[in-house]
Amino acid sequence: MNGAASLRSALEPVLPLAERLFREIGDRTWDGDGICRAPYGSGEQIAADVLAAAAGQLRLEVKTDWAGNLYMTLPGTDPGVAPYLVGSHLDSVPRGGNFDGLAGIVAGLVSIAALQSSEIQPCHGITVMGIRAEENAWFGAQHVGSRLALGTFEASLLDSTRRIDTDRTLGEHIAEAGFDVGPLQRGEHYLAADLIKSFIELHIEQGPVLESRELPIGIVTGIRGNLRCGDCVCVGAYDHSSTVPKELRKDAVVAAAELVAEMDRLWDTWLADGKDLVLTFGQFGTDRNAHSITTIPGEVRFSFDARCHSNEILADLKSELLSRAEKIGQRRGVTFRFGRFSQGEPVQMADALRRRLVAGATELGLPFLEMPSGAGHDAADFALAGVPTAMIFVRNANGSHNPAEAMQIDDFAVGVELLLWLLTRPD
Amino acid sequence: MNGAASLRSALEPVLPLAERLFREIGDRTWDGDGICRAPYGSGEQIAADVLAAAAGQLRLEVKTDWAGNLYMTLPGTDPGVAPYLVGSHLDSVPRGGNFDGLAGIVAGLVSIAALQSSEIQPCHGITVMGIRAEENAWFGAQHVGSRLALGTFEASLLDSTRRIDTDRTLGEHIAEAGFDVGPLQRGEHYLAADLIKSFIELHIEQGPVLESRELPIGIVTGIRGNLRCGDCVCVGAYDHSSTVPKELRKDAVVAAAELVAEMDRLWDTWLADGKDLVLTFGQFGTDRNAHSITTIPGEVRFSFDARCHSNEILADLKSELLSRAEKIGQRRGVTFRFGRFSQGEPVQMADALRRRLVAGATELGLPFLEMPSGAGHDAADFALAGVPTAMIFVRNANGSHNPAEAMQIDDFAVGVELLLWLLTRPD
Repeated sequence: MNGAASLRSALEPVLPLAERLFREIGDRTWDGDGICRAPYGSGEQIAADVLAAAAGQLRLEVKTDWAGNLYMTLPGTDPGVAPYLVGSHLDSVPRGGNFDGLAGIVAGLVSIAALQSSEIQPCHGITVMGIRAEENAWFGAQHVGSRLALGTFEASLLDSTRRIDTDRTLGEHIAEAGFDVGPLQRGEHYLAADLIKSFIELHIEQGPVLESRELPIGIVTGIRGNLRCGDCVCVGAYDHSSTVPKELRKDAVVAAAELVAEMDRLWDTWLADGKDLVLTFGQFGTDRNAHSITTIPGEVRFSFDARCHSNEILADLKSELLSRAEKIGQRRGVTFRFGRFSQGEPVQMADALRRRLVAGATELGLPFLEMPSGAGHDAADFALAGVPTAMIFVRNANGSHNPAEAMQIDDFAVGVELLLWLLTRPD
Repeated sequence: MNGAASLRSALEPVLPLAERLFREIGDRTWDGDGICRAPYGSGEQIAADVLAAAAGQLRLEVKTDWAGNLYMTLPGTDPGVAPYLVGSHLDSVPRGGNFDGLAGIVAGLVSIAALQSSEIQPCHGITVMGIRAEENAWFGAQHVGSRLALGTFEASLLDSTRRIDTDRTLGEHIAEAGFDVGPLQRGEHYLAADLIKSFIELHIEQGPVLESRELPIGIVTGIRGNLRCGDCVCVGAYDHSSTVPKELRKDAVVAAAELVAEMDRLWDTWLADGKDLVLTFGQFGTDRNAHSITTIPGEVRFSFDARCHSNEILADLKSELLSRAEKIGQRRGVTFRFGRFSQGEPVQMADALRRRLVAGATELGLPFLEMPSGAGHDAADFALAGVPTAMIFVRNANGSHNPAEAMQIDDFAVGVELLLWLLTRPD
């Protein structure tokens, strides 16, 4: 089953299963404004139930861990060989799209279905994992399910982290959803990283790169780290717009705009130097309770989010931001204050796996791009836990985290073809 | 009574009247957060009542026009000579200060009290005018009372202009406050501009210029015109902050920040060229329902407010704003849209009156600055209606339109001394 034609012919008959799963889960978790699969909420559970039922029909072994993560396993012929773990997350952001997360779980199930219909049972097992609570939007903590499974989520956060829409704690939500929070609170974890052969996550690309280059899939080189501050403020002085000459103004909008414009120019320079970087001031604004057309703005609040492959570049960027803010502040009579910066480590995908995926795509004649992942993924946590990890991106239109996200089933099939190649080809 | 010593000695005994009026009206129109004298509301009426009662004690003739403007008159010895009109406005912004407006009416009353205690009756009459509804904050229309009195307020606006806090029309408010809206709706007006000798408005300076130069009073050269747009928007595209490379972003914050920074640099250049200008983006921000730390901002709304002595400069500025927005939009893949621009004409104070005030201040040894008024004032409408008009500014700390505004009674006395000089000195 290693040739391009045979992989493709094994896959064709099972693609309708993928389409049925996308359709059923999409229909049942649409809330009128978009896909809503809140972690430990009904939408996420519907996805888990539908997938577990499909796994049952494929006669897979279905298990759930204390955190509610779902494991659907095709055993290998040799129980002594470590299994592949293939998966992604069950949950979505509010008003999200259908394929973000779900595609990676469905990819695992249809890969197994293709193997079964070709009557192939690899020596290694294949476990498809449906991961809980990946999205940061709900608990303000990302990758909760994978980190609970791997033992890299701090147990005390179970009681201190609250879901933004319910204000109930993560621990309460896990318990209410019917899972066993006790072992998690004692710091126990379900997965042994060293017993996993590899973790492979197929995921829609959440940016426009593959679309703009007209390529169906990407092979991920690494996941960018991030440097964030949600609580930046520029404090000037409110005053009458018409009566204060320029030299006596402390205009927070002009000062903060200058900082944004300077950082934007610095970003251009760094890109020209070949540095990896994206930079976003996503929230930015005057105080609605104090501003008016005829008032010099005395305060601007804004957020800062930078992503990069290199911790060193992120550290340089932070010091550039702070020193430029300081200088602008002195010159303009305003004060910039920055709250806590959080930093997420950049993560590299396993070199050997990445090279195998490149070889596979080349052998199969699949057009692909080697590319970084801007967004964070569960894959990062597996990699950080020491599991050899790879990611396959699938082209997707209209961005992600919105209902218009649109992956084509043909592109999905290309990604699954490469996944199947990896699962069936000896190392 | 023309010498500095005699003017000052005439004024000293009546300053306690000013202090009593400021205190009583301030105490009775403080709403817990600041001064609130909403036009045609209870606070404005309290001010009118207290002032009318004081005028009664001074045995002045007290009248009210159809719009509720208050006239308190000391007749002249020669009924054939046109009277001086001295005054300012009764109302305040929400959470405003006590002296903005009120100072000019009290100045008129204590000037008359000083004349009476010195047993001087000029040949011309002196009418102190307490003007309704000057502040733009309430009806989104400025100088309503003076324009109704002068016949320069379009009658149809009585039914279409609504008070922001009540959503009731200006006409309804005037009627409910007990005034006769009928003649106003028929376009009749109370004041004949050509029967007024001069309009003199004493007002606190609403900016920090006199304070920063340590001068008690200013003699106003003119009132800046304004160019405003409250409805500017930069539309880009929302997207994931981490997944979209710089060249594919349509970041509304970066684009709008660049526009602000460019306009700020242009402003510097124009100031260096000796042009008069102030520029404010008072409202500026991303959409709270759509923005997040990890979302490229797809929209920024902002306001634009420019003030200048010259219509030509304002017109140049508008075309600079639009062309720069167009260029930035093309370069960054965003679209700037501007709603309706409103424009207020710059107004010059009467040259002869201004020169007389300068001569008076010089003769009296009062330190002063000739300066523009950034903010609009009722005086502008008198000037536009053809009445020879002058303004005296009094130093004031902490800006205006806020409860911390702080005029010192000593500075007020300097301003009234100059006003008295003008009222008692032949042309």
